[in-house]
Amino acid sequence: MRLSRYFLPVLKETPADAQIVSHRLMLRAGMIKQASAGIYSWLPLGYRVLRRIERIVHEEQQRAGHIPMLMPTLQSADLWRESGRYDAYGPEMLRFKDRQDREMLFGPTNEELITDIVRSNIGSYKQLPLTLYQIQWKFRDEMRPRFGVMRGREFLMKDGYNFDLTREDALHAYNRHLVTYLRTYERMGLQAIPMRADSGPIGGDDTHEFLVLAETGESEVFYDSAVTDISLGQRDIDYDDKAQCAAVMEEFTTLYARTDETHDETLFAEVPEDRRRSARGIEVGQIFYFGTKYSDALGATVQGPDGKSVPIHMGSHGIGVSRLLGAIIEASHDDRGIIWPEGVTPFHVGIVNLRQGDQSTDSACDGIYRQLESEGLTALYDDRDERAGAKFATMDLIGLPWRITVGPRGLSNGKVELTSRRTGTSEEMSPEAAIARLRDIYAAHP
Amino acid sequence: MRLSRYFLPVLKETPADAQIVSHRLMLRAGMIKQASAGIYSWLPLGYRVLRRIERIVHEEQQRAGHIPMLMPTLQSADLWRESGRYDAYGPEMLRFKDRQDREMLFGPTNEELITDIVRSNIGSYKQLPLTLYQIQWKFRDEMRPRFGVMRGREFLMKDGYNFDLTREDALHAYNRHLVTYLRTYERMGLQAIPMRADSGPIGGDDTHEFLVLAETGESEVFYDSAVTDISLGQRDIDYDDKAQCAAVMEEFTTLYARTDETHDETLFAEVPEDRRRSARGIEVGQIFYFGTKYSDALGATVQGPDGKSVPIHMGSHGIGVSRLLGAIIEASHDDRGIIWPEGVTPFHVGIVNLRQGDQSTDSACDGIYRQLESEGLTALYDDRDERAGAKFATMDLIGLPWRITVGPRGLSNGKVELTSRRTGTSEEMSPEAAIARLRDIYAAHP
Repeated sequence: MRLSRYFLPVLKETPADAQIVSHRLMLRAGMIKQASAGIYSWLPLGYRVLRRIERIVHEEQQRAGHIPMLMPTLQSADLWRESGRYDAYGPEMLRFKDRQDREMLFGPTNEELITDIVRSNIGSYKQLPLTLYQIQWKFRDEMRPRFGVMRGREFLMKDGYNFDLTREDALHAYNRHLVTYLRTYERMGLQAIPMRADSGPIGGDDTHEFLVLAETGESEVFYDSAVTDISLGQRDIDYDDKAQCAAVMEEFTTLYARTDETHDETLFAEVPEDRRRSARGIEVGQIFYFGTKYSDALGATVQGPDGKSVPIHMGSHGIGVSRLLGAIIEASHDDRGIIWPEGVTPFHVGIVNLRQGDQSTDSACDGIYRQLESEGLTALYDDRDERAGAKFATMDLIGLPWRITVGPRGLSNGKVELTSRRTGTSEEMSPEAAIARLRDIYAAHP
Repeated sequence: MRLSRYFLPVLKETPADAQIVSHRLMLRAGMIKQASAGIYSWLPLGYRVLRRIERIVHEEQQRAGHIPMLMPTLQSADLWRESGRYDAYGPEMLRFKDRQDREMLFGPTNEELITDIVRSNIGSYKQLPLTLYQIQWKFRDEMRPRFGVMRGREFLMKDGYNFDLTREDALHAYNRHLVTYLRTYERMGLQAIPMRADSGPIGGDDTHEFLVLAETGESEVFYDSAVTDISLGQRDIDYDDKAQCAAVMEEFTTLYARTDETHDETLFAEVPEDRRRSARGIEVGQIFYFGTKYSDALGATVQGPDGKSVPIHMGSHGIGVSRLLGAIIEASHDDRGIIWPEGVTPFHVGIVNLRQGDQSTDSACDGIYRQLESEGLTALYDDRDERAGAKFATMDLIGLPWRITVGPRGLSNGKVELTSRRTGTSEEMSPEAAIARLRDIYAAHP
């Protein structure tokens, strides 16, 4: 993308009403614009990151055999009456009537709707196990929306639902989701620690939240520092292998790690003192096993192998897709702006032309730009007639992890500069070598 | 995808309340399920087609330099008061109050919101031209929602907005959109005829609707039969070339083609009698040029080259993304079910195993399945323990354009059968030849 033809309204001043760094940087980098309280438009740069995050979520869900679909944003109140949640859910649920005076709501979650789909279409245990998921906009009418997309009212969420014949199968689905979530966050360059949590309005006994440590997190968390040494890395996972998924669950959840809701001082005291940590965390996902809570309420049953009708065991599993942008920025920025991890960067590389209008630098930049695009690497080429300082400041603010700088002096030796946003280190090399380096870097971040 | 692990709830009976064939077939093929009046869940198969259609829309918009972004579904009433449309818009607009008693609405369209974004961020003519677009859910509270996704209440729409310095530039944007729309529909296997139309609540003088001819269309249309002979085909388009885009506009809109809203008997009488046609059509898109209607109302101005402040010239352009599924099925089906055009089919090919459980047919099917997937061709492999007739009926109903049938008799000669859903013709060939044939077919439908 040539910046002269793009829409990247960066702000010079720091917006006064933004209290946390991710909110400030998303506004300054022209990623979002508030439409009304807690409701945002995603400007082109923000939209690109959102789509990259979505894609990672899709890929990791489908890798585990989970099936994508889509439910509407608006729902009838009827199903929520059947489950008993219409009255139980607080004022966060946006309720209204349509022109026919029917009671409707903007879905804050979808257990009822998905259970209705399954009860209408599945009659036999042979059609199980099944995990369906979607990435769809939700609405929760927060009393005090704040922190930009971190605590907005309209937000994008991945919500998945597993349907199983037995508790054992459903617990495998629970473990399997934990593994997919770990992999999802790691691909985004995030360490998200699973912590035993409280189930809230979803219900059920087993639930873990995934928390990213950050000073601005809304939750207080307590953990054994050894949990931050574990990672999934590149290990091969067979998602059908119950023992393997259970082992990952155990590996990641045995050490003490809890949010303040479930924190237990006595248990925490058993952690060696030098490893006891309390910190703040941002919740970026949660998994639940709640057994037959919704299938009992809504009559979602299957015929088991013995011919008897049994309620389906269920769980639900969410990732805060739009919130993740904020969490990633909280975890990865400096004084000059955002530092995108390679897995989610809106463009793979920025190109800065130090002398726009000069025939040889223009033509070198054009060549590099075209070569990158032809190899499937996306570039944001700053081809504006601006001074170098302004171009560097914009690139630093929007946080592309790599920058190629092209100027007449380097070109006279056949060189350009490749700069890492994270370390600030620059290296001179030929344009071909810079492209080859980027190709290698991004091969690890498909 | 192995069908035994998929969620494809096909219906044996024809749903009684579905009046038109696309609605019946989408329900029977397990593509959608009604959630409430005019509001649908997209089951996995329907979701796949929706995503393919979205992808084509994205690609053709971006090919023309249009920039994707995303606006929220919910909007504040304030901006709509500024434009004067809050009171002018009828009861199709869903209005409600949030918990703070602020007046909100579910966006039926987004001229106000996008104009607000542009007026806040663009001050100079140098930042123009600009076309921003999104694919987002809309809501129109139809009095009588019907015909499934063809006239639903919650629907997915691509809406794009051009911002230009002059009327001439904005008319180029209008022509450019016409070209992108023609190409978009052609890639979906549809002939959509641009027809002079009425501008309705969007406003403006210049507007064309795109109509797909179909008996079940809601609009009456009148046209010169020669318009159905024109197509864009593979011609190269330079979207920056004003003359070329204007020539396409002229080529496609000079012959008589109008909806009943703008039909003119006197002009129609000038069409040679043997070429006069009246028929029914389904609207699948519309483009508008409305000049400074919204920029005047909302104060969206730029400084022109002479330093004077001038209102921005605008247009808006929509494609009914979810409705297109219905339109495509109306245009392409037979007694046995849907016939997907290659450009939008949910899977490239179906595999039918005639003797599930037989080691050699199972292993041949597995091999074909893996080979297809490794070449980026998606296959739906019917690996259920069902008789051949039921498998064929399901494949015919869901309408994959190609089917590979694998049975012991053919395999004894090293052959499988490749069948076209459209023509019903089958050919025996080796598995390798069948895969090669599919590779060639889909090379033309990326």
